[in-house]
Amino acid sequence: MTDKPKTKGDFTLPGEAGYEDMTLELAERWGADAIRDSDGTVLSDKIVEADYPIYSTICLVRADNEWAKANRDKLQQNYLMSDPVVAEKEHIDIDLLKGFFREQFEINANDDPKTWWQVFDRTTAEEVTKDQWTFDKDSGAVTVQNVKKWHKYTVNFLAYRIWEGISMYNHITNDWGDREHQMPIDPIYPEAQQAMLNYLKKWLDEHPRTKIVRFTSLFYNFAWFWGDPAIQKFRYADWGSYEMTVSPMAMRLFSRAKGYEMTSEDFVNNGAYCSSHNVPSGRLWDWMDFMNEFVVRFGRQCIDMIHDAGKLAYMFYDDHWVGTEPWGRRYRDLNFDGLIKCVFNAFEARLCAGVQGVRTKELRLHPYLFPTGLKGEPTFMEGGNPALDAKRFWVNIRRGLLRMPIDRIGLGGYLHLVRDFPDFVDAIEHITNEFRTLKQFHAGGAPYTAPLKAVVLTAWGKWRSWDYVGHFIPGVEIYEVTESLAGLPVDVSFISFQDIQKHGIPDGVDIIINAGKAGSVWSGGEHWKDARVIEAITGWVAQGGGFIGIGEPSAVRHSSQYFQLAHLLGVDREIGLTLSHVKLPVTVSSTHFILKDFDGEPDFGKEIDNVYVLGSDTEVLTEKEGSPRITVNSFGKGKTIYMSGFKFSPENTRLLHRSLFTAAGKEPEYRAWTCSNIRTDCAFYPRIKKLVVISSSDTAETTDVFDAAGKSIRIHLEPHGIKIMDMS
Amino acid sequence: MTDKPKTKGDFTLPGEAGYEDMTLELAERWGADAIRDSDGTVLSDKIVEADYPIYSTICLVRADNEWAKANRDKLQQNYLMSDPVVAEKEHIDIDLLKGFFREQFEINANDDPKTWWQVFDRTTAEEVTKDQWTFDKDSGAVTVQNVKKWHKYTVNFLAYRIWEGISMYNHITNDWGDREHQMPIDPIYPEAQQAMLNYLKKWLDEHPRTKIVRFTSLFYNFAWFWGDPAIQKFRYADWGSYEMTVSPMAMRLFSRAKGYEMTSEDFVNNGAYCSSHNVPSGRLWDWMDFMNEFVVRFGRQCIDMIHDAGKLAYMFYDDHWVGTEPWGRRYRDLNFDGLIKCVFNAFEARLCAGVQGVRTKELRLHPYLFPTGLKGEPTFMEGGNPALDAKRFWVNIRRGLLRMPIDRIGLGGYLHLVRDFPDFVDAIEHITNEFRTLKQFHAGGAPYTAPLKAVVLTAWGKWRSWDYVGHFIPGVEIYEVTESLAGLPVDVSFISFQDIQKHGIPDGVDIIINAGKAGSVWSGGEHWKDARVIEAITGWVAQGGGFIGIGEPSAVRHSSQYFQLAHLLGVDREIGLTLSHVKLPVTVSSTHFILKDFDGEPDFGKEIDNVYVLGSDTEVLTEKEGSPRITVNSFGKGKTIYMSGFKFSPENTRLLHRSLFTAAGKEPEYRAWTCSNIRTDCAFYPRIKKLVVISSSDTAETTDVFDAAGKSIRIHLEPHGIKIMDMS
Repeated sequence: MTDKPKTKGDFTLPGEAGYEDMTLELAERWGADAIRDSDGTVLSDKIVEADYPIYSTICLVRADNEWAKANRDKLQQNYLMSDPVVAEKEHIDIDLLKGFFREQFEINANDDPKTWWQVFDRTTAEEVTKDQWTFDKDSGAVTVQNVKKWHKYTVNFLAYRIWEGISMYNHITNDWGDREHQMPIDPIYPEAQQAMLNYLKKWLDEHPRTKIVRFTSLFYNFAWFWGDPAIQKFRYADWGSYEMTVSPMAMRLFSRAKGYEMTSEDFVNNGAYCSSHNVPSGRLWDWMDFMNEFVVRFGRQCIDMIHDAGKLAYMFYDDHWVGTEPWGRRYRDLNFDGLIKCVFNAFEARLCAGVQGVRTKELRLHPYLFPTGLKGEPTFMEGGNPALDAKRFWVNIRRGLLRMPIDRIGLGGYLHLVRDFPDFVDAIEHITNEFRTLKQFHAGGAPYTAPLKAVVLTAWGKWRSWDYVGHFIPGVEIYEVTESLAGLPVDVSFISFQDIQKHGIPDGVDIIINAGKAGSVWSGGEHWKDARVIEAITGWVAQGGGFIGIGEPSAVRHSSQYFQLAHLLGVDREIGLTLSHVKLPVTVSSTHFILKDFDGEPDFGKEIDNVYVLGSDTEVLTEKEGSPRITVNSFGKGKTIYMSGFKFSPENTRLLHRSLFTAAGKEPEYRAWTCSNIRTDCAFYPRIKKLVVISSSDTAETTDVFDAAGKSIRIHLEPHGIKIMDMS
Repeated sequence: MTDKPKTKGDFTLPGEAGYEDMTLELAERWGADAIRDSDGTVLSDKIVEADYPIYSTICLVRADNEWAKANRDKLQQNYLMSDPVVAEKEHIDIDLLKGFFREQFEINANDDPKTWWQVFDRTTAEEVTKDQWTFDKDSGAVTVQNVKKWHKYTVNFLAYRIWEGISMYNHITNDWGDREHQMPIDPIYPEAQQAMLNYLKKWLDEHPRTKIVRFTSLFYNFAWFWGDPAIQKFRYADWGSYEMTVSPMAMRLFSRAKGYEMTSEDFVNNGAYCSSHNVPSGRLWDWMDFMNEFVVRFGRQCIDMIHDAGKLAYMFYDDHWVGTEPWGRRYRDLNFDGLIKCVFNAFEARLCAGVQGVRTKELRLHPYLFPTGLKGEPTFMEGGNPALDAKRFWVNIRRGLLRMPIDRIGLGGYLHLVRDFPDFVDAIEHITNEFRTLKQFHAGGAPYTAPLKAVVLTAWGKWRSWDYVGHFIPGVEIYEVTESLAGLPVDVSFISFQDIQKHGIPDGVDIIINAGKAGSVWSGGEHWKDARVIEAITGWVAQGGGFIGIGEPSAVRHSSQYFQLAHLLGVDREIGLTLSHVKLPVTVSSTHFILKDFDGEPDFGKEIDNVYVLGSDTEVLTEKEGSPRITVNSFGKGKTIYMSGFKFSPENTRLLHRSLFTAAGKEPEYRAWTCSNIRTDCAFYPRIKKLVVISSSDTAETTDVFDAAGKSIRIHLEPHGIKIMDMS
């Protein structure tokens, strides 16, 4: 790490009552300029009265449990699909909540089930007519009459959430025992809005020392369905999905706004729900737009009240962020002063850094100061190594911070837990100093970025830039790809199929990237049946555009090709329909520009197999069991590259970096401000003429950095090291 | 091999003019009782006049090239799809035969292209109207006007075959130089029928010494499209497909018979053609039924003529077998005396052995006496080891011969090639003796078969029993499964989805097996959306039936499940639609009855991943990266077993053998007449009280055989050995 002199500022410390001395000592040690509370902690007067601005967390939907208890019909709801039951006789009873966590969910028997619920024969995929079933409130079961023997039945029903998800998680993770369960109220009801505003007003009055109101977050939790603990703790988690925004009230308002009605099945969707990794239907887009409009409108009322109280409003870009859509067009209307993102990786740093319409961007580093991590792994307890975790996360995040500025960093959780981990305290001291160093370079202007504009094409497009749709799902190519991209000195943005349908390929774009498995929101699914998309991309590549496809790009079962851009890529995939077709032999030529800088075969993780070339023009750079792994093809004046998979690694990041230049037809322009050693990255800040070189390696590394003239500078780096060079 | 005294008979030797002494010497050595010619060989008078019955090969569709040349409009035809062309301007020219072997195909310009051809925009999957395109006979190109820029176009067109496929293969493989290319004529034309009957009559008169007329085979070759040799030799090969039966004449007759018209796209099918590995459409079934009726009707005329001449008629179950359908209901109407199948494996032996309506069944062993094998690998030339090949194939085939009788074996090709391979001559001597020994046991009655009836459920059902749909395609589960089944002492038959729809599960069935990848003819594809199938199987399992699913059993994207029998199997597969759903943890219990007899993990080849259990009741016997590989589940009184893949091996054959008993609820009945050593098999012939034990191992093996009382007999076997025990 850097040996720079100690610096101060831009760091938010989680304080903790009962540990006042420790709080203030660590504030000094880590250079904190703000102190926050966390869910489950309070700040004592001693802390609050110290000379630090105070961040106070607030979550309005779970803040006033008395109001919630008095208004149980205004709790938040969602649709659940009951577990399937196979009919063994003429009628069946379906215990709706069987398999779900009964402390989280309670069946909504207030809104007429016959109006709002649906029963399905999942064998035939047909709805059961309403007169065939009845709901018994006492048993919590639906009885279906005249069922077809051996068919499978499910019920889409509405459930209130009687324990707010994030506090439920915190409660259980930290053994809060018999502390009262907080219930989430739904601001869709005017009465709830009024209660929340009343509460906020009072709260503001009671928190005169609070400088920053930290929303964790606004109103609706990402989708998180828990299970019967005897079977499985979690059933469904999607960090970007809108399941938990649903209620009859909202559905009625929606139909007034959009002119048609949503059904329970629009949300349940054969039990797949509205997962962010699936291509959203037009109806789901409409719902999200409707909820976004509502969240921004009512959110703004809350934020105005905070501003009126002379305080700032920050938002946590997790937990209850659904509906705020920081990359959407309405986000600036919320008028937030700050946005805080918890981060493990570079792509999350870019996710936060790229948001428009908010002044201060803060990263909350991991590990969170809890005994265990998000997957239940030991952290601040025996068996944990939080210092190593922190360094490992930081090394990833730092790649993103070379490229785009972030204003602040911070931690969260129970500060007292760090007591037994002095190496963690040291690690954070290093990290905070390094952060401040990097930040100061950005203040002098943007770093060198290659003359190369890449867009990532997904079904979400800009709305979910840097792919904030479900945290990191292993084996999903897009996370791996965006993590690589997040640290590269190239211009990256995100577009959707609708963008192309309406406006074609934006001017100035050099490369389109499409990465994902068939049917996923990232590959694009049914969108690839749209001839407008094929026409636009094909014509653009013919004119010199570059296309990089990873995994199953442009894949959908349609017509005579599986990759709908097979004619551009020069490869397609055998999915079992043409096994009797003899495929062209694969000849590997492994001397391509893309493959320089390392030997051996790239590790793409679980990659796509049974790929075949369509012609001998398709250059195959590497293959496995006869299936090409990296290919390069020409179409008109353009170039395309196919990769059978991707995994974030130094080797693959370099492959991608070089591929961008090949696809753009700009190979000669690759060299400037790159490193010879793939485990190192560099950024050159031309206005202040500073060069930053970082290593993501666990061991010492040597690298040559090439300047704009192609001259090389040799640099030695410590493990996870950083070097700053004055180039003036 | 056996040390039995030398025996004679039941062996067909390929003779060769110019090698008379060798022919007669090997006839003696191998115990031949018949001599045949082969494509490319003739028998001299000296051979014909020796005291052996003569088989003479005949292939009527390519027999009279003079007639073919004089009637080029009556050559056989098929639809081809031109390679796709991307439109770069307002019109495109498509060179129809580009990429195809122009010595095999000639565009049919006689039948009006506007009537019989179709042009498709393969980007939109829509047909281009007939007024938009024109065909130029001289250039062999179709020009399409007013195309959509950047869309991809193809033409379905009719091509005559101007070189008959099998003789083309033999010609090229054996360098026949400028020998005239034989052209296939189409018996769909009455004139061609008459010419063929005239030819046959004359031929019969000219072959007085011929005892057996060996058809290779009847009229239509399996589908085999060759490519431009500069690009690829073969483009498409499907040993069971009807592409090559098509002509305008046949299509007109079809529409009269079936009341509707087939289109070119029914055969081209997005370029996938009518591959036997895809689920046949109702229209394709109709076409196959129509052609089968025709082939049997006209075939019978030819066979009657042979019988009238006092000769026998045998059919080769390869090459031009399409339309004969030996497992179909009309086959016996052909009145063939013999059926000859070329074999590599046990399942092919069963394929031949199980055919009804023909008296004599003969296997033509491999290797064929050609310099190279079917994949171009060296055989009877430097680098080849035909003796080892022969033994390896024999060991596989022998497993099938333990279970079902075959009447004869034989070889084919150029006999002189064996000169340089004395070990091959020895090997065949052993094999012929062994074959005769096994045959004599069957003469005493059927061997012991466990009280266990298994049916394999595919979209073909009985019509393509033992899965003769495309030779052995690597990685296709059904071949591996049927190869294992072919040597097991259980009753195996094949049923289709239509059988279940119409008649339910047949009486007496203990186990249904469904094995294959989603969408394949073996798994069943869209058939699994049919609730009647789900009802029948579910109800039957609930009453005690056993279901074994391998790979992607019952899989189709439909409703809330991917495996439509997930409720029976207790597992389903994640195909990317529910990534955000948390799956139940997998706990492995590896002490199940199924896993006895060997340690370690089975090798299933490329298996299905991302499988998950639906409940804790599902027993997981082994898993990989969290994905169950073998599971056992109960439903009602029945049992189900899931396997993530299958590969024919001693270990997996044993797994399957035991699984059958578990699924059937008959584990206690497993032991009788089984071997302890998985590399050995045995058969007990109760009427003559003989026990045969064979080893498929390259090394010496010891095994215990358990008799019906559970008493064990220890047996030692040589590599690939056989032992006969008298149990009386």
